[in-house]
Amino acid sequence: MSVTTAKGFVAAGVAAGLKSTGANDVALVQNLGPSKAAAAVFTSNRCKANPILWSQQVITDGVVEAIVLNSGGANCYTGAFGFQTTHETAELVGTSLGVSSGDVLVCSTGLIGVGGPEFRANVLAGVTLAAPLLREDGGADAALAIMTTDSHPKEASVTSTAGWALGGMAKGAGMLAPGLATMLVVLTTDALVPANELDAALREATRVTFDRLDSDGCMSTNDQVTLMASGASGIVPDAAEFRAAVASICGTLATALQEDAEGASHDISIETINAASEADAVTVGRAIARNNLFKAAIFGNDPNWGRVLAAVGTTDAEFDPYDIDVTINGIRVCRAGEPDQPSESVDLKPRAVHLLIDLKVGTSTATIRTNDLTHDYVHENSAYAS
Amino acid sequence: MSVTTAKGFVAAGVAAGLKSTGANDVALVQNLGPSKAAAAVFTSNRCKANPILWSQQVITDGVVEAIVLNSGGANCYTGAFGFQTTHETAELVGTSLGVSSGDVLVCSTGLIGVGGPEFRANVLAGVTLAAPLLREDGGADAALAIMTTDSHPKEASVTSTAGWALGGMAKGAGMLAPGLATMLVVLTTDALVPANELDAALREATRVTFDRLDSDGCMSTNDQVTLMASGASGIVPDAAEFRAAVASICGTLATALQEDAEGASHDISIETINAASEADAVTVGRAIARNNLFKAAIFGNDPNWGRVLAAVGTTDAEFDPYDIDVTINGIRVCRAGEPDQPSESVDLKPRAVHLLIDLKVGTSTATIRTNDLTHDYVHENSAYAS
Repeated sequence: MSVTTAKGFVAAGVAAGLKSTGANDVALVQNLGPSKAAAAVFTSNRCKANPILWSQQVITDGVVEAIVLNSGGANCYTGAFGFQTTHETAELVGTSLGVSSGDVLVCSTGLIGVGGPEFRANVLAGVTLAAPLLREDGGADAALAIMTTDSHPKEASVTSTAGWALGGMAKGAGMLAPGLATMLVVLTTDALVPANELDAALREATRVTFDRLDSDGCMSTNDQVTLMASGASGIVPDAAEFRAAVASICGTLATALQEDAEGASHDISIETINAASEADAVTVGRAIARNNLFKAAIFGNDPNWGRVLAAVGTTDAEFDPYDIDVTINGIRVCRAGEPDQPSESVDLKPRAVHLLIDLKVGTSTATIRTNDLTHDYVHENSAYAS
Repeated sequence: MSVTTAKGFVAAGVAAGLKSTGANDVALVQNLGPSKAAAAVFTSNRCKANPILWSQQVITDGVVEAIVLNSGGANCYTGAFGFQTTHETAELVGTSLGVSSGDVLVCSTGLIGVGGPEFRANVLAGVTLAAPLLREDGGADAALAIMTTDSHPKEASVTSTAGWALGGMAKGAGMLAPGLATMLVVLTTDALVPANELDAALREATRVTFDRLDSDGCMSTNDQVTLMASGASGIVPDAAEFRAAVASICGTLATALQEDAEGASHDISIETINAASEADAVTVGRAIARNNLFKAAIFGNDPNWGRVLAAVGTTDAEFDPYDIDVTINGIRVCRAGEPDQPSESVDLKPRAVHLLIDLKVGTSTATIRTNDLTHDYVHENSAYAS
C-alpha cells in the first residue's frame, strides 16, 4: 500500500536537515521500467514554484525516469538561484541513477521564500543519501519524507485481479483548494499504459477528487500529482478498469487529506443535487465551502442553514432563491425557502457532516468536500512560520 | 453627528423585545421635508430578505417618507408570512405618520429564519412605541436600535460651509463583504437634491467605500444603504461638494465597520498599485482579503508574503508573477519575486496594517479593507445563534 506496491518501482526517504526535527525530508522514487510513461497535473496558481516550472517541461514528452521530492522549503519565489537549485537537483538525480536530468521530476513543499544556499546544500545532500538506498520496499520512508503539517503519512493502493497494481502516496494538510492539484501526490502502476492514456485517466480522476477538495480556499504554488507506469507487470489493463482504479485511489487519498486538514474538527461533504449543470453544482458547493461563517457554525455544532443560503445566493448558478431545500445530516431544516424541521434535531457531534442542497432545477450533481473553521486552524496557521 | 444632524429629520429608537437583552431594537427615521427625495442600494445577494424585496419596490419612484429598521431577526427565508410582516410594518408606519406605506422603507437584521408570529408582534409593537417618540435629537436612540454584534453605535456627519448638513448611522460587524451594501446604513441630508442625483452620488460613494470592505468574504442577505434628502436647508449644494461629502461619510462609516469587525485584532488596508485597470486592482486586493492563511498569519503578527503571492496567483489580473513587489507596513519584503528586506523588520503589533502590492504593469490603483482571522472571530461566529 505505497508508491512501491506496483512492480518496477524503488523508493527511498532520508533526513537531510531540511526539517529541524530531524525527520525524513527528501524522497526519491525511480521507475525501473520497462516503460517510463508518465503524466502529471500541476497547480493552476499563476505564481508557480521553481520545481513546478521545471516539472512542467519534463513531463511534455510523457517520459519520467524518477521523481525527487523535498519538504522543509517550497523553493517558490527564490529567484534564479532557486531555479538553479531545482535544475542541479535533477542533474544530481540523473547522474546518481544514470538517467537524463530532463526525465527527472522535482517537487518541493514548505514555506514560500525558502530556497537559499543552505536549502540547496541540504536537498543535494539528501539526493546523495537517498540514491543508494532505493529499495522495492522504500515507499513508507518516502511517504514520511514529503510530510509537512500532516499528522501521518498518506498511502493507498489498488490491486487488479488482472494482475497489475496501482499505489501511491500524498501529502497535504493545509492550503487545500482547487486548481487541479493542490498537494503532492505520486502514483505508480506496473500496468502497461502509454503516457496519453495515463494523462487522460489522471485528469479525469483529479477533476472529481482533488479538484473538489476545498479545505480552506487557499491554492498552493507547489502542488503536483504525478502518475508513472513501469509496465513491469507486462499487462495491458482494461481501459475502463484502469481509469476507475486511478479515480478510486485519488478519491482515497483526497479523503485522507481532508481528514487530516489543519485544525479541522469536522469533515464536511457538500452535495448539491438537481442542479442545471455539473458546473452549477460545483459553483454552489464551492461557495458554501469557502464561507467562513458557515464553517465556524459547523465548528460550533450549529446547523445554521441561513448561512448556507446566504452563500448560495452569492453565486450565478441557476435556481429560484425561494425554492431551495437544505438538509443537514438527514434533517431537512429548510424547505422551499422556509424553516422546516427544527435545527435542534440535527446532530453535529460526529466528525462527518453531510450537507445536501436541492436546487430543484435540473439533474446534475456534484460533491465538494471541506472542513470547518476552528480555533486550531487559526492557531496552526498563525504560528506556522515560527 | 447622527441621522438627525440634518434639518428636516426626526428619529426614535425603542426596545420592543426583539433583543433578549432589553436593548433598543426598533428604529424609525422620518423625513419631514419639504423634499422627500431618496436613493438606496441593496445587497447583490440573490437570496434577499423580505425587507429588501419590499424596499426595492418602494425606492423605484425616488420618494421616501420614512424608514423603519429592526435588529433581532433578519426576516429572511421566512416565507409568505415573513413578507406579510414587512408589509404590515410599513402599513403601520404609514398609518402612524399619516403617509403612504408605499413610501416607507423597511430594514431588518439578525438571524436568517427568524420572522415568526412573535417577531411580527414585537416589530409592530416597536413601531407603535416609536412613532410618538420621533424627535429632532432622536438619532442616537435610533443608532442603538440597529446594532447586532456591533460593540458600539456608529454615527457620522459632514457639515458644509454652504449651510447644509449630511449625517448618518450604520450597523455592521460581521458578514461584511461586497455586493454594494453589506450592512444597514441610513444617511440624511437637508440639502435640496433630486432623487437621481442622490442615487448617482450614493452609487459612486458606495462603490469605493462599503463595496471595498471585505472583512470576512461573507455577503449578507439583508443589507441596504439609504440616502434621504429633506431639502430643509433650502440650499441646492454644489454637485461636486455634495458627492464628495457622501463619499466622505460613507468612508468614515466603512472605517467604523472595519474597526468593529467581529473578533478582529488587525485592520488591514490592501493597496494594489500600478495595475492594468481598477478592476484588476480590486480583484487582486479581494483575493488577498479572502485568503484565510494570510489573514491568520497577520493575526499571528507574521508578515507572510508568500501567502500574499499565492493569493495573487489565483486571479486573472494582468501581471508578471515574477515581477511583483510586496511591502508590509513600509518594509519591502519581496522584490520582483524574490525575498528582499528580512520579514523580521516588519512591525505588525499595531492594529492598522498596510499591505502594498506593486503589479508594475499599469497605472490603476484600488484599496480593499479587511481584517485578520482570529480565535475571537471563530468563537463569535460559532456561538452566534446560541
